[in-house]
Amino acid sequence: MKSVQAFAPATVANVSCGFDILGFAIEGMGDRVTLREKETPGLVVSSIQGDGGKLPKDPIKNTCSVAIQALLDELGQNVGMEICLEKGLPLGSGMGSSAASAVAALVAANHLLGNPFEKKDLLPFAMAAEKAACGAGHADNVGPSLLGGFVLIRDYHPLDVIKLHVPKDLYCTLLHPHFELNTADSRSVLRDSIPLKHATIQSGNVAGLVAGLYEEDFDLISRSLRDVIAEPYRAVLIPGFYEVREAIKGAGALGMGISGSGPTLFCLSKGKEKAAKIAEAAKEVYQSIGLGVDVYFSAINTAGGYVLEG
Amino acid sequence: MKSVQAFAPATVANVSCGFDILGFAIEGMGDRVTLREKETPGLVVSSIQGDGGKLPKDPIKNTCSVAIQALLDELGQNVGMEICLEKGLPLGSGMGSSAASAVAALVAANHLLGNPFEKKDLLPFAMAAEKAACGAGHADNVGPSLLGGFVLIRDYHPLDVIKLHVPKDLYCTLLHPHFELNTADSRSVLRDSIPLKHATIQSGNVAGLVAGLYEEDFDLISRSLRDVIAEPYRAVLIPGFYEVREAIKGAGALGMGISGSGPTLFCLSKGKEKAAKIAEAAKEVYQSIGLGVDVYFSAINTAGGYVLEG
Repeated sequence: MKSVQAFAPATVANVSCGFDILGFAIEGMGDRVTLREKETPGLVVSSIQGDGGKLPKDPIKNTCSVAIQALLDELGQNVGMEICLEKGLPLGSGMGSSAASAVAALVAANHLLGNPFEKKDLLPFAMAAEKAACGAGHADNVGPSLLGGFVLIRDYHPLDVIKLHVPKDLYCTLLHPHFELNTADSRSVLRDSIPLKHATIQSGNVAGLVAGLYEEDFDLISRSLRDVIAEPYRAVLIPGFYEVREAIKGAGALGMGISGSGPTLFCLSKGKEKAAKIAEAAKEVYQSIGLGVDVYFSAINTAGGYVLEG
Repeated sequence: MKSVQAFAPATVANVSCGFDILGFAIEGMGDRVTLREKETPGLVVSSIQGDGGKLPKDPIKNTCSVAIQALLDELGQNVGMEICLEKGLPLGSGMGSSAASAVAALVAANHLLGNPFEKKDLLPFAMAAEKAACGAGHADNVGPSLLGGFVLIRDYHPLDVIKLHVPKDLYCTLLHPHFELNTADSRSVLRDSIPLKHATIQSGNVAGLVAGLYEEDFDLISRSLRDVIAEPYRAVLIPGFYEVREAIKGAGALGMGISGSGPTLFCLSKGKEKAAKIAEAAKEVYQSIGLGVDVYFSAINTAGGYVLEG
């Protein structure tokens, strides 16, 4: 029987001024899914590693099987598959953990079936899995995890996903404090309506960020990395936010923001050296406030999910 | 005594999803200013043509002299100049009429004085003139009239103006109905606060428009030319808005929006032929509703204000 292993990267959604419309993928960190064809139809989640026993194996609830089932339903096929998930990402951290699992599962399944879909066309299936996992079929994690790079979700009706240009030297440092933040809490602090003035500021910054990516203008990227919509309300829920922001500026970061709905923070920088310095500077701050943290830095992943073996 | 003549182009501010942050310049249409050095210090507006006698010659109120005075104050000079203004743009039409006068005056004055300022650094003086003319020192008309092309006003504090890439084949059709729309009325219909959902849609579209300009992706530009913030409230003030929009779609327009605060409408298209077809289609609609209209089409002006003679 055939077997395929695929990988999909961690992602940062929102990206400050890109609230609810932008996300990008991180090189190196991510989830692996191994699929084995089986003779009897139906999906079975046979093993999950690295989740501390927290994720469901029930195929109706598991992100991987929900995603693959959506794909099989579209094809009208009922192929039997055994799913092994290796979590490389912490759960509920704001690094697109469920998205990476769903994308890795879909990339593997599509390969196993002889690639009936273009990569981009796997997105709705991944969104169906996000809906099952998080209650909303957002694309700002699954989009970049699937396609790589910086991804703009221009619209959902119909879905319009655009891969933006990314300067080669752009690096990301991720700071994952050992602290749980409930996504619902993080969402509930947002206002349903906002001042028109704030909407205009946010628009100006997101336009500046996109232009900065295309122009490879790191100063412009830096000036544009501001969020007046979500960050002012969410930052107060994240211990050390303002102290870390001060410290990473001194280490040469272009800017910092909340990854997804937190508590992980992301910093962008020009070049690997600065990304490493930022990681060190942030670690010191977390140490000083007595909070454990995992730090990680890498280039922007531009490939998205891909097949490792099979 | 030295003499200089300069030209500055008409501009479209807002550009649908770019409400209050984007503007672009139009090739060919604009205002001319001729300056003549005079022996006695002080500014004199000696002639204004094409305004139907509506513009003030008082140097404290005239856009050209206010702009030049701001420049002279910055230099600490008191050079005497005689100002002749030839209006090529209708007043209060939403085509950046006051901006074109101020920019032409500044480009001429800077040349006459031996170019003490870089072109970009003339912007604050033009904004001072806009403040005198319109009550607010907006940069979304003076920015593109001075610099040419598509201009993003990312921020005002401090001023951050970015010239975006423009595809060569991008054309604009301007439709100026013979109808007066009070700018204050057009501003007063806007809401002070908006749903967060609308802010997100607007952000997605402006990010899509900027990416579309850089990618030279006309379909993406077309999909992104939507305004959920100002247009729904302003369109009802502009006779024929919805009928024209329907007609120009059939003629191959990428999209249509309100130029500035109206009543002029702008349509974008790929290539000159479509721009001409759009002009014809729109004319028919205005004729059918019994409203006079001036139509004009051209490429995007990428040079901005420049010296004609001197």
